Amino acid sequence: MHHIDPAAHLARVRETRPLVHNITNHVAMNSMANVLLAIGASPAMVHAREEAAEFTALAGALTINIGTLSPHWVDAMEAAALAAGETGRPWVLDPVAVGATRYRRETGARLLALAPTVIRGNASEIIALAGGAGGGRGVDSTDPAEAALEAARRLAEHTGGVVAVTGEVDLVTDGRRLAQVRGGHPLMPRVTTLGCALTGVVAAFLAGADDSFEATTAALASYAVAGELAGEVARGPGSFAVAFLDALYHLDHEALAERARLEMADAP
Amino acid sequence: MHHIDPAAHLARVRETRPLVHNITNHVAMNSMANVLLAIGASPAMVHAREEAAEFTALAGALTINIGTLSPHWVDAMEAAALAAGETGRPWVLDPVAVGATRYRRETGARLLALAPTVIRGNASEIIALAGGAGGGRGVDSTDPAEAALEAARRLAEHTGGVVAVTGEVDLVTDGRRLAQVRGGHPLMPRVTTLGCALTGVVAAFLAGADDSFEATTAALASYAVAGELAGEVARGPGSFAVAFLDALYHLDHEALAERARLEMADAP
Amino acid sequence: MHHIDPAAHLARVRETRPLVHNITNHVAMNSMANVLLAIGASPAMVHAREEAAEFTALAGALTINIGTLSPHWVDAMEAAALAAGETGRPWVLDPVAVGATRYRRETGARLLALAPTVIRGNASEIIALAGGAGGGRGVDSTDPAEAALEAARRLAEHTGGVVAVTGEVDLVTDGRRLAQVRGGHPLMPRVTTLGCALTGVVAAFLAGADDSFEATTAALASYAVAGELAGEVARGPGSFAVAFLDALYHLDHEALAERARLEMADAP
Repeated sequence: MHHIDPAAHLARVRETRPLVHNITNHVAMNSMANVLLAIGASPAMVHAREEAAEFTALAGALTINIGTLSPHWVDAMEAAALAAGETGRPWVLDPVAVGATRYRRETGARLLALAPTVIRGNASEIIALAGGAGGGRGVDSTDPAEAALEAARRLAEHTGGVVAVTGEVDLVTDGRRLAQVRGGHPLMPRVTTLGCALTGVVAAFLAGADDSFEATTAALASYAVAGELAGEVARGPGSFAVAFLDALYHLDHEALAERARLEMADAP
Repeated sequence: MHHIDPAAHLARVRETRPLVHNITNHVAMNSMANVLLAIGASPAMVHAREEAAEFTALAGALTINIGTLSPHWVDAMEAAALAAGETGRPWVLDPVAVGATRYRRETGARLLALAPTVIRGNASEIIALAGGAGGGRGVDSTDPAEAALEAARRLAEHTGGVVAVTGEVDLVTDGRRLAQVRGGHPLMPRVTTLGCALTGVVAAFLAGADDSFEATTAALASYAVAGELAGEVARGPGSFAVAFLDALYHLDHEALAERARLEMADAP
Repeated sequence: MHHIDPAAHLARVRETRPLVHNITNHVAMNSMANVLLAIGASPAMVHAREEAAEFTALAGALTINIGTLSPHWVDAMEAAALAAGETGRPWVLDPVAVGATRYRRETGARLLALAPTVIRGNASEIIALAGGAGGGRGVDSTDPAEAALEAARRLAEHTGGVVAVTGEVDLVTDGRRLAQVRGGHPLMPRVTTLGCALTGVVAAFLAGADDSFEATTAALASYAVAGELAGEVARGPGSFAVAFLDALYHLDHEALAERARLEMADAP
């Protein structure tokens, strides 16, 4: 398997400036839009049943995040995911706290059945989505990414897509290949919705990509490098969030070549 | 026609601290509230059908932004716009991505029929709202402001109000007069919802103003100067957003006198 | 009555990292999540009727904020408050702008009947919630905290809980005891939803606390010290918000011992 070059993927995002349609949670919307603008994509948040599917067909990629649910929104999520499938748009499922309540488990199952191109979650969420009992309470993971490897592999086989388990070390698999991404910074979990925003970055990298596994891995590696750079100037979570957007905006070939730490592992 | 002095309008906002009622999109709410507080106004976000009209009657001005729609919200928007008309409150329509879907076009038309005091949008949105085919995809404009001048003039005649087309150069017209505002900074489109927040600032400047055209132009000029000041210290979009709020807060007569670049043009 | 040590309460939050379930307004969600993460708690925003009560039972504390209402949300608020009562979770009511509209007054009354552990509001809100006519228009208070002391006492007696009136000087009472907290910074009201986020911090301090009055007072004192520290480096409301999160994150025993200004007053 050939080398994954994050800079080449980032260059594609910046050249094509993909419109990313997000049905995401209320907490994440502003941060996610800023992250997508900083990386060079064009975000839009559209959640009404009346227009979600129509809008998906205009976009380069779609994200669906179940962080703050309500019945109308779940309907729009399904309609948008169906539209993505019918029009060949890649879409990313972010199963926030999917194991916490019956409503989340049911919604997660409905969306899983629509075969997301990529699923991005923390270990507890990936385990719960695969039908296991992850230890996550709210949106935080209580399991390391490695603990979710088997669940990730099962989900990838089930959907035919890619699964990314993010944590201190990120794992990406399409059931056949497995990549590990290191980097980031300990302050990242102290800034809300950076994981949700990463889901948007994965979608931006998927738009126009030939290989979803490689694009996802490149997105994670780019995000980790930006986190590392931000961590060098941050004085706490407030200044980290600011520096992170600046770092995403300035992220370039040199920084990625020097700092990206992604490696292929044996197939799971 | 006499000279427009942005500092005089800003002084009125700071003295009267107008309550601005916003029915705006989920992405913009936090940024818009911070922008309004920084400039000296008092923001409130109230969107329930059960109370929107009642709340409008308490406020000095109203904004309606169609960025993230749902049927209940559209009902509240109409009720609030009607209440604004009945009680003599100025209101500003922000037709985010109005050309993107049928639902947006219909909602835009319903609100346009209620005669907004000011419409503020990018060129693609103004063209689409006027019934033309703007090139905008999501919330970003693909047309320069000048391309929307004829559409702006038609909308101003249709509503009897003011239309502001914002972009690298801003245009303001009431169908009879035309102003151009220059300034701002290239990082502004890289920070989400700064356009939406500008709509709030326009509303704050309209509260208690004698002339909507002049107040709108003054708001745009003040915003552009703050953007310019922020751009001088920002290192990227993250630090720009922070510096922009600081600049709005400290914006004064001197900075506006020295930097504001607004000029009257021939009638459109 | 014994001494209240804010540092001991803060240490408990950081050790136990309580999951705080928030049904809060759209404007506050992101800021509140960041404030809770910075102080060491784990925030979650869950508002669907389908899952709110179930989620409350997983959390260490609950907050309900009526800033941006809609009927589905009010139902979820009632269900969550009931679940909190049944499962012995402390919960905090934040009656944003409760006097502004009939819908807010009715919603405030419904929630008040469910006996919140703590009510946290500005003076105008506390007066309005107690049935008086506070001067508040939107979310800003037009009354000093002292003006709400009698109303706070009545509410505390009515609910059997604690009432915190925040402003330039904060007052906390459980009907029997009264504490005053000073500190903070004049820029705090210029940053949106810092009051809402404080409600979350109060909830985090309540989780696992023996005495709600003491925990609430400790939360307010900690917040005020962080505000004071942030004010020393801020250049305006934008940089204040950033510095405030950094200050909450680094808040320690020394800063609290040196700067916290809380004192017991005669019973109201």
